[in-house]
Amino acid sequence: MNGTHLLDRVRVVLSHTTHPGNIGATARAVKTMGLSRLYLVNPKIFPAAEADARAAAAEDVLCAATVCTSLDQALAGTVATVACSGRHRDLTHPQLAPREAAATLIDHAHDNDVALVFGAEMSGLTIAEVTKCRWLSRIPANPAYSSLNLAAAVQVMAYEMRNAALLETGQALPAALPTLTRSGEPASFDQIEMFYRQLEEKMIAIGFLDPANPRRLMQRMRRLFARSGLEKEEVNILRGILSAIK
Amino acid sequence: MNGTHLLDRVRVVLSHTTHPGNIGATARAVKTMGLSRLYLVNPKIFPAAEADARAAAAEDVLCAATVCTSLDQALAGTVATVACSGRHRDLTHPQLAPREAAATLIDHAHDNDVALVFGAEMSGLTIAEVTKCRWLSRIPANPAYSSLNLAAAVQVMAYEMRNAALLETGQALPAALPTLTRSGEPASFDQIEMFYRQLEEKMIAIGFLDPANPRRLMQRMRRLFARSGLEKEEVNILRGILSAIK
Repeated sequence: MNGTHLLDRVRVVLSHTTHPGNIGATARAVKTMGLSRLYLVNPKIFPAAEADARAAAAEDVLCAATVCTSLDQALAGTVATVACSGRHRDLTHPQLAPREAAATLIDHAHDNDVALVFGAEMSGLTIAEVTKCRWLSRIPANPAYSSLNLAAAVQVMAYEMRNAALLETGQALPAALPTLTRSGEPASFDQIEMFYRQLEEKMIAIGFLDPANPRRLMQRMRRLFARSGLEKEEVNILRGILSAIK
Repeated sequence: MNGTHLLDRVRVVLSHTTHPGNIGATARAVKTMGLSRLYLVNPKIFPAAEADARAAAAEDVLCAATVCTSLDQALAGTVATVACSGRHRDLTHPQLAPREAAATLIDHAHDNDVALVFGAEMSGLTIAEVTKCRWLSRIPANPAYSSLNLAAAVQVMAYEMRNAALLETGQALPAALPTLTRSGEPASFDQIEMFYRQLEEKMIAIGFLDPANPRRLMQRMRRLFARSGLEKEEVNILRGILSAIK
């Protein structure tokens, strides 16, 4: 259970790629993040020596790539699909930030295949292609120059897929979110443990937690507060509140 | 205040780059994420036609690049520096995940320059180079093939820098963190507001919150719980605890 089994369910679909070098660079990007399944819909030139060269040690991904004649063929059997597009589009299609898109796909990857879909280098995905996908995701880019290289866009999305898979299988703690203001000094391990101890004692004291039947209550509380990335001052306030309960 | 002023403080330092194509691709990656300041420490070949070609419409970043003869020169005047390395190292150097590294650098970028430092393509950063930086960051990669292309690694780190800058300037809400298990259904706005109301009432009742002098206490609590992305079940537990306080 190292997250790999989830990443094995992910298809990376490139539609109508013009430059074989980009296919090779994509194979490398995909492999560095532990993904392996490349689907090529009507690539202009493939196979190609330039693709092999740019793939570096990821030629196995390239060799195993599935060449398709339609997007329908590449997406057959998938249960969740994200169209990755750099262009602004009318908001008719549900949009997810890359991080949310990755979490959503990984959530669906337990039992079925899922897919990330990328369009041609210059024109991106067509409207017809986007509408075959369930969600749309756009990497937040410089409005003055939003043109990521195809393999670079795949690298970012694959990175988020790996993060999501590691989170899902409990191998990465959610990164403490950047605090909303700069003021906060992070609480130390010891301070947080003292807070948890006090919280548990107080929940027992007020009759909310039955030590004989704790129902994973503390585990849930730890999970909640771990996600928030507690600050020193916040722990002081929380402990102050607990102390005020008689 | 669109985050750009923070990204203007960020130097992207490439040390001893071998292939000029990678310098060009890095310029493009940097510009797509709204960064602009490239520092080149002893590049093997620069300027070069291949760099220009791979930079696409980011040749302005390439033209404005500062060529240095030492890492010290590239880092002079910075207050926070992250060494980006794909290699596992002894843990003597403080490590940050890419997301945390970006948040940390952006946090320091309000008044001073900060830097991301990348080593040569094959060998990465030397130990001497790493020890000149304050933190070390590693993109989580496939243990069987962790060799990201240089520009691809820069793309991922620059993506996190842009995310962090948008967060810091309040233009992006922190993405709801993927939950640690799939069980959690997110709490609705109304449920969370009811929790806050009950929390406030109870803090007044136990004498912790003085309504005449609230000291931004509720604001702090909202900030804490907003970061955690509360689930429905968690709100139920928190409200249950509050109800049990007599």
